[in-house]
Amino acid sequence: MAYTLRVEAAQAVGSVPILQAMGVRLVDVRPGFAAAELPPEPNVNHFGVTYAGSLFSVAEMLGGVLCLATFDLEPGGELDGCVPIVKESTIRFRRPAVGVVRAEASLPDAEVTRIRRDALATGKAEFVLEARLTDAHGEVVSTAIGTYQLRIMSA
Amino acid sequence: MAYTLRVEAAQAVGSVPILQAMGVRLVDVRPGFAAAELPPEPNVNHFGVTYAGSLFSVAEMLGGVLCLATFDLEPGGELDGCVPIVKESTIRFRRPAVGVVRAEASLPDAEVTRIRRDALATGKAEFVLEARLTDAHGEVVSTAIGTYQLRIMSA
Repeated sequence: MAYTLRVEAAQAVGSVPILQAMGVRLVDVRPGFAAAELPPEPNVNHFGVTYAGSLFSVAEMLGGVLCLATFDLEPGGELDGCVPIVKESTIRFRRPAVGVVRAEASLPDAEVTRIRRDALATGKAEFVLEARLTDAHGEVVSTAIGTYQLRIMSA
Repeated sequence: MAYTLRVEAAQAVGSVPILQAMGVRLVDVRPGFAAAELPPEPNVNHFGVTYAGSLFSVAEMLGGVLCLATFDLEPGGELDGCVPIVKESTIRFRRPAVGVVRAEASLPDAEVTRIRRDALATGKAEFVLEARLTDAHGEVVSTAIGTYQLRIMSA
């Protein structure tokens, strides 16, 4: 498996202590795609399955990671100063999650182009990202649909 | 302020290690009502505001805590064997959350009566709970709407 981890994406996880505490681990990050894994411990709830809030977190953070891997947000880059913000998210818990959970999300090329164009033109671009969470058997345990904005951060 | 903490409700938080790691603290729990607080650390993200996943978690867990404080789920109780399960949740992030966040949710008496009746009759009752998250100034930072089930847990 190819591990393409942009430094900024890895730092984004590392800079949120509670994501580190969950053990969230980026496993495949490249332009238009992000995947992460969530281990059972310390995310297991009192029913012995992965806690809803941890499932939400590993799904939600993909939006930020994907932006960092897809758009040139670095100092001096064409979208320097833009940051990804989550506006709203709906998560559906489809079945109990046991073991390591993998979350992944992608943006089609045309959507990447549209977001980049909107952000360059107006300093703001909204997009919707669907994250799919699966267990070790490939069964979908949750799906999450997040609405994000990539926008110039006000000082 | 009156602190009415049912032992089972406190145990529900204590039995999910990641909620403990977030520092989630029940502050007012009684039949039909639950409130909890979330401290900034270790929930602050790379923008210096409270991370979305932690806001989600403190909102979501109110559903379980409220059930434990409202219905008689204890061994030998009238709803012994029933557990609260979250099916779906939508959270809207309205403004950046800074400082201690308070989350609260309530169920009207008529809804408590309806849920109890449905659970007794069919072993399953669905309900919707809105959680309101406010900062130290009382400003709403997020709102979350969760769909829960109180149902007999299969062995």
